[in-house]
Amino acid sequence: MRNLDEDNITQAVLARHAAMPDERLREIMTSLVQHLHSFAREVKLTEEEWFAGIQFLTETGQICSDKRQEFILLSDTLGLSMLVTALNNRKPQGCTESTVFGPFHVEGSPEYALGDNVAEGVKGEPCFVRGTVRDINGEPVPHASMEVWQADADGFYDVQYEHLEAHQGRGTFRSGPQGEFHFRSVRAEAYPIPYDGTVGRMLKALSRHPWRPAHLHFLIKAEGYETLITHVFRDGDQYLDSDAVFGVRSSLIADWVWHEAGIAPDGSRVDVPFYTLDFDFVLNPVQAGKAA
Amino acid sequence: MRNLDEDNITQAVLARHAAMPDERLREIMTSLVQHLHSFAREVKLTEEEWFAGIQFLTETGQICSDKRQEFILLSDTLGLSMLVTALNNRKPQGCTESTVFGPFHVEGSPEYALGDNVAEGVKGEPCFVRGTVRDINGEPVPHASMEVWQADADGFYDVQYEHLEAHQGRGTFRSGPQGEFHFRSVRAEAYPIPYDGTVGRMLKALSRHPWRPAHLHFLIKAEGYETLITHVFRDGDQYLDSDAVFGVRSSLIADWVWHEAGIAPDGSRVDVPFYTLDFDFVLNPVQAGKAA
Ligand SMILES: [Fe+2]
Ligand SMILES: [Fe+2]
Repeated sequence: MRNLDEDNITQAVLARHAAMPDERLREIMTSLVQHLHSFAREVKLTEEEWFAGIQFLTETGQICSDKRQEFILLSDTLGLSMLVTALNNRKPQGCTESTVFGPFHVEGSPEYALGDNVAEGVKGEPCFVRGTVRDINGEPVPHASMEVWQADADGFYDVQYEHLEAHQGRGTFRSGPQGEFHFRSVRAEAYPIPYDGTVGRMLKALSRHPWRPAHLHFLIKAEGYETLITHVFRDGDQYLDSDAVFGVRSSLIADWVWHEAGIAPDGSRVDVPFYTLDFDFVLNPVQAGKAA
Repeated sequence: MRNLDEDNITQAVLARHAAMPDERLREIMTSLVQHLHSFAREVKLTEEEWFAGIQFLTETGQICSDKRQEFILLSDTLGLSMLVTALNNRKPQGCTESTVFGPFHVEGSPEYALGDNVAEGVKGEPCFVRGTVRDINGEPVPHASMEVWQADADGFYDVQYEHLEAHQGRGTFRSGPQGEFHFRSVRAEAYPIPYDGTVGRMLKALSRHPWRPAHLHFLIKAEGYETLITHVFRDGDQYLDSDAVFGVRSSLIADWVWHEAGIAPDGSRVDVPFYTLDFDFVLNPVQAGKAA
């Protein structure tokens, strides 16, 4: 401890943590300190670069507010969020895969009946979504809580508008007796993640665009099954191979099928061209001793 | 890019950075992403732990202000600051070693003549400091700019007091024709780093104390020599083996020698017991092609 240099300082820090009673915390801090130090050594971080990093992190924290979480955006754009999602959602082949949660989910979104229109006046081309919720053995999952949320035709979620008065493009409903669901909304569109902050500056320095391919978010909960947080991505989107937050999985890509104006799948008449999306979800039963 | 999972996501993120024109930035981001992902994989970071990390970083940024830099404190307490100092200040044997800069340096501290008292009324036991500045070949370094700063008897720097009206316990002077210097101040005392924020909470969770062993800061600049940022640590301090920021090097430890009230080394009469500290600095000449 009296001759700390670039070679022995990592061991000195770890030794300081040897007495910590919380074993999990020690495991995390040991790995964190080792990787943090290895990073600095590997690139031979200069004092100016270190200070630029301090300033970047400080500013990132100061941009955060009730409405904005720039550190989640940083985690998303560095692929960390998707990695943590993957690490914590290993499932048998055949189950619907998980992807990133994203920053635009809202607690307490309005409840709807099957067949309702969750658009609530939001701008976009009509879209009729339908499918079933089943489990890995093909059994229907009735009464599953299904939350959906999406961006409008301009690529914004309702919460991104300053003077929002009601929820738009989001809602919660329950699957029917055979696990079936259907609802109306608008076609999902590609959108850029907020890029007027530190993360936007980072993406620019990295010659990266901020776009996400068009997608519809789902959060599905049912008793006895693992909660599923996922998206359905729109096939043909130009950003499927370069999602700014690395969320795409090919099993989550589906067709938004175009139709001329006429009779919609729910029997209603639509005066403009519309889309249909069919997508089935497969839930993973909770393993004994593991929380949903 | 359409089947990202825990095994291939790191390569996917790195591939996204392949086109970046700035080679140094690519080098840094490659190492950063690899280590960040390896950390998450190694500890199998849970979603709850990930979110606790997001909240910790956010709060750390929000504590920062003009008067406080909590991210530097975080870097200091994780040993990163000392590592970066060591990586960037490799010197020939015999040169005075560098240590961490710390958060209490102030630009534009008052100028003093050799022999002046920099305490300016600060609380503490009188201390007379003297020594020489030489280079690695033993040549004196005259007219070197020497900044000193230190905590008072209560362990606080002047800038930590809310209603500070003048600089106390800090000053700048120049070495004399033979590289000699001497000044009066008070004895340096051990102090805890600020621990009412996120870093304090972290230290508590890690069963670590926030104390630094007593030390006197020096920043020495002279034309043709590398700038030296260092401390002199007080021998016998109980925290020499557990400095909260890992800054100790045995070559920087020196004796603060106790004397009975009487005649001080500068010939003045002192009515209370006092200390003397002798310490010589050895500067490293600037290498051709390297900035000071
Ligand atoms: Fe989204
Ligand atoms: Fe200090």
